[in-house]
Amino acid sequence: MRFHEAYRRHVLMPDFRFARQHLAGHFLDAMTAHVRTVKRLKDPKIQAHQKDIERLLDELQKLRNQELPNYNSEVPDLYFAFNQRLEAKLGQETVSFLRMGLSRNDLDMTVYKMRTRHLTLAIIEQVCTLRAALLAQAEKHLATILIAQTHHQPGQPTTVAHYLMAIDNVLSRHLEKLFDGYRHLNTCPLGSAALAGSSHALEREFTASELGFDAPVSNTYEAVASSDWQVDFVNNMQSVALTLSRFVNDLIVWASHNLFRLSDGLVQGSSIMPQKRNPVALEHARTRFSRTLGSAQMVIYSSHNIPYADLNDFGPDIQGALVSLYIQLEGGLELLTACLQEGQFDTGKLAQEALCSDTTATELADELTRHFNYSFQEAHHLAAALVNKLSQEGRILQEATSEDLVNLGGPRLEVKVLKEALDPVAFVERRRGIGGPAPERVKDHVTRALQEQAEYVDRLAHLHSQLAESHQNLVMQRKEKP
Amino acid sequence: MRFHEAYRRHVLMPDFRFARQHLAGHFLDAMTAHVRTVKRLKDPKIQAHQKDIERLLDELQKLRNQELPNYNSEVPDLYFAFNQRLEAKLGQETVSFLRMGLSRNDLDMTVYKMRTRHLTLAIIEQVCTLRAALLAQAEKHLATILIAQTHHQPGQPTTVAHYLMAIDNVLSRHLEKLFDGYRHLNTCPLGSAALAGSSHALEREFTASELGFDAPVSNTYEAVASSDWQVDFVNNMQSVALTLSRFVNDLIVWASHNLFRLSDGLVQGSSIMPQKRNPVALEHARTRFSRTLGSAQMVIYSSHNIPYADLNDFGPDIQGALVSLYIQLEGGLELLTACLQEGQFDTGKLAQEALCSDTTATELADELTRHFNYSFQEAHHLAAALVNKLSQEGRILQEATSEDLVNLGGPRLEVKVLKEALDPVAFVERRRGIGGPAPERVKDHVTRALQEQAEYVDRLAHLHSQLAESHQNLVMQRKEKP
Amino acid sequence: MRFHEAYRRHVLMPDFRFARQHLAGHFLDAMTAHVRTVKRLKDPKIQAHQKDIERLLDELQKLRNQELPNYNSEVPDLYFAFNQRLEAKLGQETVSFLRMGLSRNDLDMTVYKMRTRHLTLAIIEQVCTLRAALLAQAEKHLATILIAQTHHQPGQPTTVAHYLMAIDNVLSRHLEKLFDGYRHLNTCPLGSAALAGSSHALEREFTASELGFDAPVSNTYEAVASSDWQVDFVNNMQSVALTLSRFVNDLIVWASHNLFRLSDGLVQGSSIMPQKRNPVALEHARTRFSRTLGSAQMVIYSSHNIPYADLNDFGPDIQGALVSLYIQLEGGLELLTACLQEGQFDTGKLAQEALCSDTTATELADELTRHFNYSFQEAHHLAAALVNKLSQEGRILQEATSEDLVNLGGPRLEVKVLKEALDPVAFVERRRGIGGPAPERVKDHVTRALQEQAEYVDRLAHLHSQLAESHQNLVMQRKEKP
Amino acid sequence: MRFHEAYRRHVLMPDFRFARQHLAGHFLDAMTAHVRTVKRLKDPKIQAHQKDIERLLDELQKLRNQELPNYNSEVPDLYFAFNQRLEAKLGQETVSFLRMGLSRNDLDMTVYKMRTRHLTLAIIEQVCTLRAALLAQAEKHLATILIAQTHHQPGQPTTVAHYLMAIDNVLSRHLEKLFDGYRHLNTCPLGSAALAGSSHALEREFTASELGFDAPVSNTYEAVASSDWQVDFVNNMQSVALTLSRFVNDLIVWASHNLFRLSDGLVQGSSIMPQKRNPVALEHARTRFSRTLGSAQMVIYSSHNIPYADLNDFGPDIQGALVSLYIQLEGGLELLTACLQEGQFDTGKLAQEALCSDTTATELADELTRHFNYSFQEAHHLAAALVNKLSQEGRILQEATSEDLVNLGGPRLEVKVLKEALDPVAFVERRRGIGGPAPERVKDHVTRALQEQAEYVDRLAHLHSQLAESHQNLVMQRKEKP
Repeated sequence: MRFHEAYRRHVLMPDFRFARQHLAGHFLDAMTAHVRTVKRLKDPKIQAHQKDIERLLDELQKLRNQELPNYNSEVPDLYFAFNQRLEAKLGQETVSFLRMGLSRNDLDMTVYKMRTRHLTLAIIEQVCTLRAALLAQAEKHLATILIAQTHHQPGQPTTVAHYLMAIDNVLSRHLEKLFDGYRHLNTCPLGSAALAGSSHALEREFTASELGFDAPVSNTYEAVASSDWQVDFVNNMQSVALTLSRFVNDLIVWASHNLFRLSDGLVQGSSIMPQKRNPVALEHARTRFSRTLGSAQMVIYSSHNIPYADLNDFGPDIQGALVSLYIQLEGGLELLTACLQEGQFDTGKLAQEALCSDTTATELADELTRHFNYSFQEAHHLAAALVNKLSQEGRILQEATSEDLVNLGGPRLEVKVLKEALDPVAFVERRRGIGGPAPERVKDHVTRALQEQAEYVDRLAHLHSQLAESHQNLVMQRKEKP
Repeated sequence: MRFHEAYRRHVLMPDFRFARQHLAGHFLDAMTAHVRTVKRLKDPKIQAHQKDIERLLDELQKLRNQELPNYNSEVPDLYFAFNQRLEAKLGQETVSFLRMGLSRNDLDMTVYKMRTRHLTLAIIEQVCTLRAALLAQAEKHLATILIAQTHHQPGQPTTVAHYLMAIDNVLSRHLEKLFDGYRHLNTCPLGSAALAGSSHALEREFTASELGFDAPVSNTYEAVASSDWQVDFVNNMQSVALTLSRFVNDLIVWASHNLFRLSDGLVQGSSIMPQKRNPVALEHARTRFSRTLGSAQMVIYSSHNIPYADLNDFGPDIQGALVSLYIQLEGGLELLTACLQEGQFDTGKLAQEALCSDTTATELADELTRHFNYSFQEAHHLAAALVNKLSQEGRILQEATSEDLVNLGGPRLEVKVLKEALDPVAFVERRRGIGGPAPERVKDHVTRALQEQAEYVDRLAHLHSQLAESHQNLVMQRKEKP
Repeated sequence: MRFHEAYRRHVLMPDFRFARQHLAGHFLDAMTAHVRTVKRLKDPKIQAHQKDIERLLDELQKLRNQELPNYNSEVPDLYFAFNQRLEAKLGQETVSFLRMGLSRNDLDMTVYKMRTRHLTLAIIEQVCTLRAALLAQAEKHLATILIAQTHHQPGQPTTVAHYLMAIDNVLSRHLEKLFDGYRHLNTCPLGSAALAGSSHALEREFTASELGFDAPVSNTYEAVASSDWQVDFVNNMQSVALTLSRFVNDLIVWASHNLFRLSDGLVQGSSIMPQKRNPVALEHARTRFSRTLGSAQMVIYSSHNIPYADLNDFGPDIQGALVSLYIQLEGGLELLTACLQEGQFDTGKLAQEALCSDTTATELADELTRHFNYSFQEAHHLAAALVNKLSQEGRILQEATSEDLVNLGGPRLEVKVLKEALDPVAFVERRRGIGGPAPERVKDHVTRALQEQAEYVDRLAHLHSQLAESHQNLVMQRKEKP
Repeated sequence: MRFHEAYRRHVLMPDFRFARQHLAGHFLDAMTAHVRTVKRLKDPKIQAHQKDIERLLDELQKLRNQELPNYNSEVPDLYFAFNQRLEAKLGQETVSFLRMGLSRNDLDMTVYKMRTRHLTLAIIEQVCTLRAALLAQAEKHLATILIAQTHHQPGQPTTVAHYLMAIDNVLSRHLEKLFDGYRHLNTCPLGSAALAGSSHALEREFTASELGFDAPVSNTYEAVASSDWQVDFVNNMQSVALTLSRFVNDLIVWASHNLFRLSDGLVQGSSIMPQKRNPVALEHARTRFSRTLGSAQMVIYSSHNIPYADLNDFGPDIQGALVSLYIQLEGGLELLTACLQEGQFDTGKLAQEALCSDTTATELADELTRHFNYSFQEAHHLAAALVNKLSQEGRILQEATSEDLVNLGGPRLEVKVLKEALDPVAFVERRRGIGGPAPERVKDHVTRALQEQAEYVDRLAHLHSQLAESHQNLVMQRKEKP
């Protein structure tokens, strides 16, 4: 009971519980890898105690199958609770082979990175799933006209698929950055001890490889002092959340106008308003993105204006925030994915909207410059006057006749030419340049995206199996023993 | 099982658990107050069912002593789970007196405000306790010289008490703002229904008073749409955290130089470095302040660029962040308080430091202008030259002799005058103007602060008992029944 | 040229320019007040040089009418540039009465607070103007039905005035907090010197009063070390920006549906889309609120994890951020005010929308409980079924007949009762409880708000004239001299 | 004068000035590239007007040598001001070839990306310069012992070079990410028109290549709607600032203890305290990092909860924040670089500190396990007891004798073994594993870093020359004309 009650309540107890829930397996992996590294030391003492070290490894293995220790006031953390158990079983001397050249500094940092590796892969997986749902909708709506807004006003016709592939482009970049973040993260602190490494000749490449890391961190001070890997993680989460806060905003507006309809399992009614069918899943997704952005600041603040040294700020004290950040983003991603998977764009209502907008005016202006000696400025002016005049008469642009143009002092366009110029479908089909909304153009884009997506899924599977293998390797070596 | 699995997992289940843990009592209070308001309606139907309404109130009372309902997939939230239980016992018709003119919109918002009231009072209490610890240290160290730094360099002598009372001034303002925040918060949404109030003539002042609110919110739309009360809460927490991040920074520096020594229960050793005695409680307090600032952003983001309307963003989706914000700040406050209560300023080491600094140079310059025809600029110049020269000789300012000044072309100060001018204790005692560090001046300040502190404690007790009374009133009315 | 080029370019030069543009007058006021305080010292030397001090005050006065000094590499800041001028004119000895017991620490902090006082009053003024525009719209639209949304779906009928008064309630609280912030801010650091005050017996109450402060800061260390007054300012700005980000969001949605129409001077067309009339003033207002929230973080970060001591972080280095925060919010407020002053709610379109929604379903349910033996739950269920059925038939709720209800197994409501229950105007008029939308109820609210607004305007004028008087007093005393 | 005064003052005027100062050259490049793309259209009208288009290109070229237009109330922005000038010279018809298929949407976004490209390269350059200064210090201090702290307490001996190379590792990752950010950014929006591309067959690859972009943005909607490239930029700046906030914190502590001495051009004295030599350049660097973090939030908030569409939020309204973010970080980087280039680690004081610490206790414990049958736990315990005992006697660990150990019940270590175990220099030299502080190990690390640094400098030069070439190409094509 040597620790102050406030310290136990606010620090030791919650940290222990967190470690127990989120880090225990990683601790056992890392401890095992360290002992296996110690076992390889040329040191005569080590050579003389190979059997003891084997027993220690066995006992570490057994810990995996036991119930995890609960918080008790005698030990400060889970690592020491494991030590306590091991010592009770094997005695201090045998357990000392675990303690050789090991500090909580490098051990903790290793375990935290292992945890964040998993969180990163989980997010990659969810972004891939979201993307699959999005690509499936895009394939369905290559020709579904959407009146796109700019500045909160109807802008020009495009298609649902074109819009979705614009989002997809951003998701693709996010995936690339998430994989990059994984790579930047995936170096192993173990063997760095307190900060200066150990005078024991520990083979750090071996340890790193045992734990599925690409390499050891190449400076032992850095290994225990750096927090930029957390900031990378946070930046990536934040960036995804921000993109999706914009996407979800559009889905909400469309849901609000019944252009996009959520499935029944994702809406809620009201306790007092009988007519209600609220698209709450989207709203809750939005708030998760907002909370992700806020949680990000927890991590940023925790690394701000502190020494570049081993500290609690970016160690135990921020791991909960990283997990909470993950949970927020996971929630947002899964809710949004469900909405996309089960939601339906109402092609009827979208088509109706397309008919009523004045958004083909740009093409009318372009046609005037093509067929007559009009500058674009004059044509723009004339088209604007036409929209205005029709609006005063309660008519819409698509109802315009050749006569209307002539009456405004304009030239006489052939009826067919005019009709096509004002047609949203034609508008879209004419835009077949790189990146344009013409259905066959977007179809190609979808095809490329599906290929890329398959590659990402492969890369993900590869990383997953790497981790699984190294973990299995650590576990199996014990099991194989007679 | 009508809700989508992702919706249940990410929304309904965690929200239910949160409500169960943090809001259940407030829900029962608010529901009771609403039914009691309904009971007063002049409406003949209500008059005819007074007994049923009594039974409903009784049953609401009994819910308090039952185990709380667990999450189940049939109902969306805790409120409906309570409804379910009541209907099972009393039938739908009787329970309908609860549902009259009640929406989850106004009910939830009422409950959230009740929760935040408690959190605010809890923070006020902890700030008061911190302040008491701080004032006790100040009383002990009225004459303990501290060499205060400016720009990370030794500046001038002051006292530990003077420094602490500077912090105390800020804490006092924080307390005032916390009480203001409570007042701004303490109006009752109930009776606002979905947003437009009800066509039932509910007496909203009565409801408000039953629940310990100062008044009903004076616009029913505002009642369900406003989130500024959350932002107030957050701003206050953030503001306290920021002030204390600076205070704790100084304590860490002092602890790092052994000028301030933490008690054994608040330090930790190292698993690898035998010499260690780390002032970790302060470090953990710092991180809690950092996390408070980050959590604040969760709440700010959740109210950003959303409609001014009833929404989940600042409703169920952000209550967890408010509690988490509270927990961070509570942790920081309690750790810091423990450090102050049990920590000791090392007067020996502080005195030694005071002897070695050159920080009385300002007073030397002032004395030169007093005793000779020196402008302050010349005197400043001469004092700087003296410090410089002594430093080159490996001497400190307090060792300066009259000869040293003369050698630099300065006047000859009497030995006694020079000695006093260079003495940190005299330096402090001479500064007896308003707000100055002279011990008797600071003693007065401490006395005033203790009085003010007592008044705050009274105000706090008054608010606590108001809430307790209104709660007891709601509970007792039932118990008194035969 | 003693300073490093990077230091001059990134620190001295921009700080000088900032001080020249924003602080020069405050510097001269504060320097004058300090010299006037020095002049009152009982010190024989001071008594002997009263004439010199008068000359110094005269010269300070003259500086006001001269062109401000430009940055030059010989002096580090504007204060020393003023010193340089004064010394050139009066000699070092006379100017030394300015330097007595004065540090840049207390001088700068005084000047910064004076600046922030003005910024606070300017924001108060702009919020008052916005509020006036809002109240004027509310008066015009007491009976204009607005279908209010909850969860991005039509919720219930209310009025434009009811909605606006909900916003007004929040603005009123913001004003109260802004005045509180002014009060918390308005204490004078001058006389605190470096941090410990001076051994000269400066009358700090006198100095404070000369500069229009309510009192001197009651602890000299606090005077130069505290940054909570900045955080208060920032919190208030942030809080206003957040509220208005929500209000502006609604206006954008209404503008986007032509329910609210901006004046021509506040919209923009498109360089390529002839039909465009973008409500850009609202969009730009939104971004200014977003930038306000970001700028707020500049100030918060600058006070995070730094010592509680005199430092540049919250001194010269953050004043630009405070001004930039102000400019963003000012821009947002003025754009929004212009939109409200000149914008028009389209009562025709709003009325049409009111007729087409199903949002009176709540009242129908209430009526069923009033006229028949229906529980609210049953009535809610029946109303929902009705909405659903009509929707399948392509009809809206207001077209429902008594027959429709009967066909669904419901009771037969009298035609008149049914019609009224479904009428949005009746819906609103029936809601006349505290805070309800019934026009006469809201009219009272507007009247109270106008009175309160007038009081705020008075308080503002009072503070403005206090500052003007103290400033004039400092200037006049010189002018009156023969 | 059609725009509202508030709109002109808060939007048009500042935006115009910003564009004039920061974007004018990019506008002319982009407009030129667009016209050159138009010129290649197969369209007969275009073929017929090749000469006119040449004249337009000539005139665009001449604009580069004219004074830039000032803001005037007739045109909304710089682009239209250029248009106005061109039309005045060439007539509307000729200028219409600029307007073909061009929208401010794609033009602005192109220009903004061009600007951010330059900002990114500038930051890369400054990080490279900082790194060079850091590596130079590391080379000088391979063997300079530094007592590294963990948890704000002396931890273990390492070297200044080891510490600096830990920072260098992080800077190296930052550089990699900055280059990645450049690549993600470097795709060209031009040709996307309003959002759907144009019905003119503009060759977007050609345009992209003319402007030094790697490719056109592959979806025209994305081209005008995405803001993730800004968020990338911001994340990278934020990440660098956070790392350096930690580094600068250490330098400040060392400067504060005179272990690191700034050159005279980077310190400031005090107006009142003659003894002062404040390391203000470091303090100002710190605040610039804090402000960078705050400015980052301006950009994040501006993309939060807005539609995914062309908007002002992440367009004109945030470019100032991007530049301001850049300026803050640039200031911090250059100040810090100057401090490192001219600052000196005081090897004498560092050596003295190394002698007085108890930080070799870990090695003593390790030695006990090597030479005797001690477990690490026992050895740790014994070493801790020794430190404690000596401290009570006022002695330090390096003074320990073999006798001292024996007196505590420990074994008798040979004098030479003990002496070496306690020697900080030996401590460091023994740590020669991967990433350890042994001087020859760190020397290798420095060598590798210098190579890598040279490669980065090459990559940077390559990108710079790519941009310069494409710019020159656009300019020269005109100049070459007879």
